[in-house]
Amino acid sequence: MYPIDQTHDPRLESWIESANDPHSDFPIQNLPYGVFLDRQNRPTIGVAIGDQILDLRFSVAEVLIDPRWTKVVSGESLNSLMALAVSARTELRQEISRLLEGNSNCDRQRLSQGLVEQATTKMLMPAQVRDYTDFYASIFHATNVGMMMRPDNPLLPNYKHIPIGYHGRASSVVVSETQVRRPWGQTAPEQDGGPPGWSPCRLMDYELEVGCFVGSGNSLGIPIDIADAEGSLFGLCLLNDWSARDVQKWEYQPLGPFLAKSFATTISPWVVTMEALAPFRIPEFNRPLEDPAPLPYLDSANNQQRGGIDLRLQVSLSSEKMRAEGMEPVQLSTGKFAGMYWTFAQMLTHHSSNGCNLQPGDLMGSGTVSGPDRENRGCMLELTWDGSVDKPQPGSQRTALILPTGEERKFLADGDEVILTGYCQNETHRRIGMGQCRGMILPAIKLPAN
Amino acid sequence: MYPIDQTHDPRLESWIESANDPHSDFPIQNLPYGVFLDRQNRPTIGVAIGDQILDLRFSVAEVLIDPRWTKVVSGESLNSLMALAVSARTELRQEISRLLEGNSNCDRQRLSQGLVEQATTKMLMPAQVRDYTDFYASIFHATNVGMMMRPDNPLLPNYKHIPIGYHGRASSVVVSETQVRRPWGQTAPEQDGGPPGWSPCRLMDYELEVGCFVGSGNSLGIPIDIADAEGSLFGLCLLNDWSARDVQKWEYQPLGPFLAKSFATTISPWVVTMEALAPFRIPEFNRPLEDPAPLPYLDSANNQQRGGIDLRLQVSLSSEKMRAEGMEPVQLSTGKFAGMYWTFAQMLTHHSSNGCNLQPGDLMGSGTVSGPDRENRGCMLELTWDGSVDKPQPGSQRTALILPTGEERKFLADGDEVILTGYCQNETHRRIGMGQCRGMILPAIKLPAN
Repeated sequence: MYPIDQTHDPRLESWIESANDPHSDFPIQNLPYGVFLDRQNRPTIGVAIGDQILDLRFSVAEVLIDPRWTKVVSGESLNSLMALAVSARTELRQEISRLLEGNSNCDRQRLSQGLVEQATTKMLMPAQVRDYTDFYASIFHATNVGMMMRPDNPLLPNYKHIPIGYHGRASSVVVSETQVRRPWGQTAPEQDGGPPGWSPCRLMDYELEVGCFVGSGNSLGIPIDIADAEGSLFGLCLLNDWSARDVQKWEYQPLGPFLAKSFATTISPWVVTMEALAPFRIPEFNRPLEDPAPLPYLDSANNQQRGGIDLRLQVSLSSEKMRAEGMEPVQLSTGKFAGMYWTFAQMLTHHSSNGCNLQPGDLMGSGTVSGPDRENRGCMLELTWDGSVDKPQPGSQRTALILPTGEERKFLADGDEVILTGYCQNETHRRIGMGQCRGMILPAIKLPAN
Repeated sequence: MYPIDQTHDPRLESWIESANDPHSDFPIQNLPYGVFLDRQNRPTIGVAIGDQILDLRFSVAEVLIDPRWTKVVSGESLNSLMALAVSARTELRQEISRLLEGNSNCDRQRLSQGLVEQATTKMLMPAQVRDYTDFYASIFHATNVGMMMRPDNPLLPNYKHIPIGYHGRASSVVVSETQVRRPWGQTAPEQDGGPPGWSPCRLMDYELEVGCFVGSGNSLGIPIDIADAEGSLFGLCLLNDWSARDVQKWEYQPLGPFLAKSFATTISPWVVTMEALAPFRIPEFNRPLEDPAPLPYLDSANNQQRGGIDLRLQVSLSSEKMRAEGMEPVQLSTGKFAGMYWTFAQMLTHHSSNGCNLQPGDLMGSGTVSGPDRENRGCMLELTWDGSVDKPQPGSQRTALILPTGEERKFLADGDEVILTGYCQNETHRRIGMGQCRGMILPAIKLPAN
């Protein structure tokens, strides 16, 4: 679907030196899109290259890239660009790659006027998210949460047949570095028949997820075939599905999570395209052969062979005290995105299988990326086994998290900053990174107690 | 909150004769807003009056209403108008009322050029719905569905404390008269351990609901106090929450309904404002005094005294055969909206209580409006007790629905059209109506069988 071409050549270097740093998330092989505030404070589409941003509105105005792209790169969000056909997206990527490569014959002095240092600018939401859907595609996460919520019945019988998902709240999807207020919420009565609680969330959690922006989409009533699904994926970001666990436990039956999630969802600002990810496509590896095959509408040879993405993920945390003492963030867990049970192509196909229309800029969350081992658990609920050191935790350590300052964490404290990162790397291609998804918890607002 | 003023005077008549017909949904006391296609095929904001529409873009261009309204009435959706403060909304309503009343001194000949016959025009979605949330506010519906899905535990312990709701799909909210394709979907295996089904939906249902558009909304992180909640409600429409029951039963645990709902949700085109509804505000009457009081954040004197809306609802059905034989639609059920357990003010306050930002044009569905009696059940699932004449049905008739043609219905057949209507009426004020919410089921598309 997404061919590996000259833009992926690992020998390719950029004349923008910082892009050639082997630790850079944004070498010329990546070229993710984002929206930044330009010097006139106008939302502007750009491409990350090393520690710089190439201003695409400037680039097209100066005819550094073909004027036919004017409409899709001169707006204030990526939605029009996301709506392009795959062939057009590939052409635009190739044009940008040629501009920035070491042998480029473009007017570098002129182009340099369209470069902005990432460190000096503010990133905005990359797209207007019309609809946000959150899936549940890690069988390890589903099983762990199920063990806590329904010990007798952890994994429901539909799990291996349906990419389980639910509609999320689009209005509260925010970009990295937006501070997140600890929400108030209603919680289960302390004793049967008593009044429910009403307080600031006591069990504040993050969830390590990968987000996927929908590309061209579909019309209402017309499902997207699994054979065409990859072509409707635009690109990936990192996603933190903040979760108020005490609220969730009390509210989620029978219609699913609601206010436990809708106070904020944070995404990273750079959208790494499916084209850039082409060299890192592999089979997903956590669907045992003895498990039931997906129904034919969710199955294809391409999905079996290249549905997975070899994307490695990390979660780090920095407490207020750690920052005061000059400490670096501490890593809480790592994840392998190719270890999910369902691929984004399957999620998209299932989502549209009833005719539901997906639109350019719609966002799908993967669900918490967890693996079989303790160090691969993608949220605090799993890492601290619901914050408890008393309950049985089959195969797990029974300890809360201890930060380098000696502080203990069962769930997030005010002032904690959660940082998600991710990258792709293999033996034949150059490492590309996702940038960062950061968010810090602010204290709850003051409200009258009940 | 919404005062009763001269615009509600039941003696008020319009110089547009059709508005004075006592059966008209749209007397001068109503003045609902909608968006229609004008003669140049441009989406245009209008007000329904009798069998006419007053074109507001024309009205403001001709200075029939104050030019300060230009921005909010000249666009292609009601979102900007919905964002107005209540005081401004009230002023605009009063201006329009004065234009159309019998004693109006406006230039009627000029204004007549801005009148369009409803019968000759096409109605569009009234607003761009950024987020759609569906609630579950009838305790009778929740109990009936619970009895079918969880016979041992029909009403969950959170129900009387939380206005239960979930995020719905905004992209597939469509306006009345949009035809609805029967969706394909995955269904439970016929035998344990066997493969799930994959077919066009076999248990296609409607749900009678009331929709509420959000007005001014709130910023992320700032809840809306119950004392201010009414001011953030803009107005009501009728809403049909189409439901694929076989899909729902298999998919809904643990994250709630998803594809069983997201293929389409139909709303009526006219938004009846909270101002127009002011004379019909009453207490809700199905929350027994012995039930737990709502937590203080969901409780206010105004909500107790005037939180309900005395809106009567009807569902009718017309089959293909009935239409071929020239029969009128047959009434399936009626509903009383003031019989809900939770008010829209409570739903909105709860929704924003975690800081979730609501925006002008966001849509809240009430959940199926059902009452204690069989004739007040707002969906086929309840009316036919899950389509079964064999299972125990406490207190209910054990019959499927028989149409006037002799056709039997357990769920909807292709070609069935569902028609929702509603009106407010009391002894002191003039009847106002909601218009119609219509939708017809088309056969599923052809897909390869598994």
